[in-house]
Amino acid sequence: MRFFDDIAIGQRRELGSFIFTADAIKNFARQFDPQRFHLDEEEGRKSLFGGLAASGWHVGSVCMKLLVADGQRLAKEALARGEEIAVWGPSPGFRDLRWIKPVLAGDTISFASEVESVRPSEKRPEWGIVQARNTGTNQRGELVFSFLATAFVPRRTPASD
Amino acid sequence: MRFFDDIAIGQRRELGSFIFTADAIKNFARQFDPQRFHLDEEEGRKSLFGGLAASGWHVGSVCMKLLVADGQRLAKEALARGEEIAVWGPSPGFRDLRWIKPVLAGDTISFASEVESVRPSEKRPEWGIVQARNTGTNQRGELVFSFLATAFVPRRTPASD
Repeated sequence: MRFFDDIAIGQRRELGSFIFTADAIKNFARQFDPQRFHLDEEEGRKSLFGGLAASGWHVGSVCMKLLVADGQRLAKEALARGEEIAVWGPSPGFRDLRWIKPVLAGDTISFASEVESVRPSEKRPEWGIVQARNTGTNQRGELVFSFLATAFVPRRTPASD
Repeated sequence: MRFFDDIAIGQRRELGSFIFTADAIKNFARQFDPQRFHLDEEEGRKSLFGGLAASGWHVGSVCMKLLVADGQRLAKEALARGEEIAVWGPSPGFRDLRWIKPVLAGDTISFASEVESVRPSEKRPEWGIVQARNTGTNQRGELVFSFLATAFVPRRTPASD
């Protein structure tokens, strides 16, 4: 994880991709979103989705999984260079989440995160606030998922400047 | 599920509650959000959350689960009355999701959904667009989670008017 001081508007991270298999789609749906078009191929085909479709919360949760893995990768790289690791604060939420196109069984979704805004926190000078647009794109290059996340990111302590 | 014509601003549904046990929190985290404060009590206590905390995506997914169960309950009631069931369209997304307070192991969160706006779709006269504020409140009455969902809801066909 990076420090606020190392983050700039426009920075983009490719987070990796995930294949939404029928099994993965149904497994999530059984736990959290048991609607027919998330549980059964035929019901999916008959629905507006046109096929067995992943729950939108599944798409978001997979994006979270890849964001966490990317953060852990960055932390390991920083450790390997002998650098201090930034511990990010909890996310207060996000804005403007869009499920733009269905994610159907067999689709491979590639996720990315791009910094949209950075500003120091007024109340807590040791923190900065970063907004990043997280997106998912399918194997045909179509944007299927997008949300604007907000994170509290620590600033480097004066001692390490 | 109700038809657009039956939905009015201010209508509120209590969706039921869910106990976020340590096991449920860790099980979700292992699958989708393996950050330390979601996986381990001691790490949670040391974090800004102050305890083993549920992933925000877990809280959202549980809210989805209860929304679906509520819709299925409404559909069964309508069927029992011999009424037609409205089949809602896919959600295009939502706005303004807030994780207001941590959800910690043992917390019971009660979810509710309240209609904030209704309008006919301009492009598709057979559909209306409903915005509902979905919320989660803990056992101390504190609002912990909130988002504004958008749904396409069918209008009654002229034949059934």
